[in-house]
Amino acid sequence: MSGGAEFELIRHFRARVPQHPAVELGPGDDAAVVCTPRGERVVVTVDMLSDGVDFELDRVDTRRVGHKALAVSLSDIAAMAARPLAAVIAVLLPRRGGMEVGRRLAEGFVPLAEEFHLALAGGDTNTWDGPLAISSTVFGTLGPRGPLTRGGARPGDRIVVTGAFGGSILGRHLDFRPRVAEALHLQADYTLHAGIDVSDGLAIDLSHLLEESGCGAVLHTAAVPIHDDARRLAREQNDGRSPLDHALGDGEDFELILAVPAAEAERLIADQPLAVPLTVIGEFVAKLGLFEADPAGSHRPLAVRGWEHRFEE
Amino acid sequence: MSGGAEFELIRHFRARVPQHPAVELGPGDDAAVVCTPRGERVVVTVDMLSDGVDFELDRVDTRRVGHKALAVSLSDIAAMAARPLAAVIAVLLPRRGGMEVGRRLAEGFVPLAEEFHLALAGGDTNTWDGPLAISSTVFGTLGPRGPLTRGGARPGDRIVVTGAFGGSILGRHLDFRPRVAEALHLQADYTLHAGIDVSDGLAIDLSHLLEESGCGAVLHTAAVPIHDDARRLAREQNDGRSPLDHALGDGEDFELILAVPAAEAERLIADQPLAVPLTVIGEFVAKLGLFEADPAGSHRPLAVRGWEHRFEE
Repeated sequence: MSGGAEFELIRHFRARVPQHPAVELGPGDDAAVVCTPRGERVVVTVDMLSDGVDFELDRVDTRRVGHKALAVSLSDIAAMAARPLAAVIAVLLPRRGGMEVGRRLAEGFVPLAEEFHLALAGGDTNTWDGPLAISSTVFGTLGPRGPLTRGGARPGDRIVVTGAFGGSILGRHLDFRPRVAEALHLQADYTLHAGIDVSDGLAIDLSHLLEESGCGAVLHTAAVPIHDDARRLAREQNDGRSPLDHALGDGEDFELILAVPAAEAERLIADQPLAVPLTVIGEFVAKLGLFEADPAGSHRPLAVRGWEHRFEE
Repeated sequence: MSGGAEFELIRHFRARVPQHPAVELGPGDDAAVVCTPRGERVVVTVDMLSDGVDFELDRVDTRRVGHKALAVSLSDIAAMAARPLAAVIAVLLPRRGGMEVGRRLAEGFVPLAEEFHLALAGGDTNTWDGPLAISSTVFGTLGPRGPLTRGGARPGDRIVVTGAFGGSILGRHLDFRPRVAEALHLQADYTLHAGIDVSDGLAIDLSHLLEESGCGAVLHTAAVPIHDDARRLAREQNDGRSPLDHALGDGEDFELILAVPAAEAERLIADQPLAVPLTVIGEFVAKLGLFEADPAGSHRPLAVRGWEHRFEE
């Protein structure tokens, strides 16, 4: 879910999907939460990846494509602080060479599933005259603290992120490790109010979280961890976009943005309990909108850039 | 799952997918059965439909395409005698006119979901330069009798089918009603040993059931219920294929094939408990293979025809 979506159409769907008593959390978060008749809460997310949009099949190792297809869904599971349980994967294989593509995709799925103790429970294999497309559905279960949603951030909470941002197109977007263990660890040991993973871009995904939480945020842009890839990309492209622009806008970092109460954020930063660094990059505020703090201490609106699909009507 | 698949590649996947303790029933049936940590058994199936393979977008009402995309997965749920719970749907929309396509698809999904008390829990909306593709994942829960699998047919059981076969391409393949309520009703009131839904074709899907059950079957071809569409298609195409050929090979009937103990089948046929007719079309035998009984009482092998995707290597 999420990820380069046509937001207007999604809003259209959300307004028309009937309410259902089993749905504890429906469209609009990183994953849905559905309650079974026996009271088990199942977290479920689906992602569709396609050649030319999410990867270029003729330019990369097909195993990396398989890895990415499953990893993006695991990242949604991580954003809910859920434990992965099982996946079903459907593929549309190009007719020419499709058998070999299928085999190599599986070589990407299987090691990742093993690493995350995820059952590959089933799938659907088809061929067609079009390009490769892969749909990955992952199910997970919840611990006693329940799902980490987009909707719980409160004014005063700190914006905490894992890792560094920008330039994932240089290769990280295919090879990243979803932050599943990190999210479970943090949710078990600290109070977290809200979370989202960064697929569309740090600024745009933060604004998605703000929308669901009904608050605003002030970003200390100088504190945003900039990935070396963002610096390299800015240098190589030399198109006026700074490393910070890349960090805020590129997307597909698949890091976590968390809303953490101020005192708890202080403890978290002091502890640094993960192998990946945790950084405070700003705070949530009551005033709606996304702002950046300038050196003089005042706030100005931050332009939100990120990946968006476009239709031609 | 199932449905026009490249069987060699599926066998390749099945051999390589690691075992997982949560998977009670893995790839190879109409749906998978996964056990949650609290002991809830969740049935899950995924289907990928695409323009030019499963429908022709420029020739049919897009709402019928949306209906079909969800109905094929519900048919897999029916084949397991499971109760639908929730669905997640991912779409790849063509860039040109994609917004309208998305809206019309939803007009197909929503009424079907309401009819089957299925929660539309989430999705993923993407656009690309390729043709329309839709992935539909449905999950369900099981009653006390557990899943109806492909693997339980025993020699002596009768082959019982719902409805009539052949010629679905004339329109039924887009508009069919998955046999969810019928399967639940039959499993509650009768002893069923095995079941499958007919997506690839009556003969080929029966042979899938035989493969999982480790037995053979003798078909009384004169007893096979032939749909009026099969007669019409044979007449219109006039290519030497009889109405029976269409009934055995066309596929996408989305009726059920059931293995029922002999005495129970007699009771079932006498009761006719459903609105749709139930018919005995043969029996399961110990000898491996699919045979037809000829008028003299001997058996000859039946050629298995059905829909299969082909690769060009």
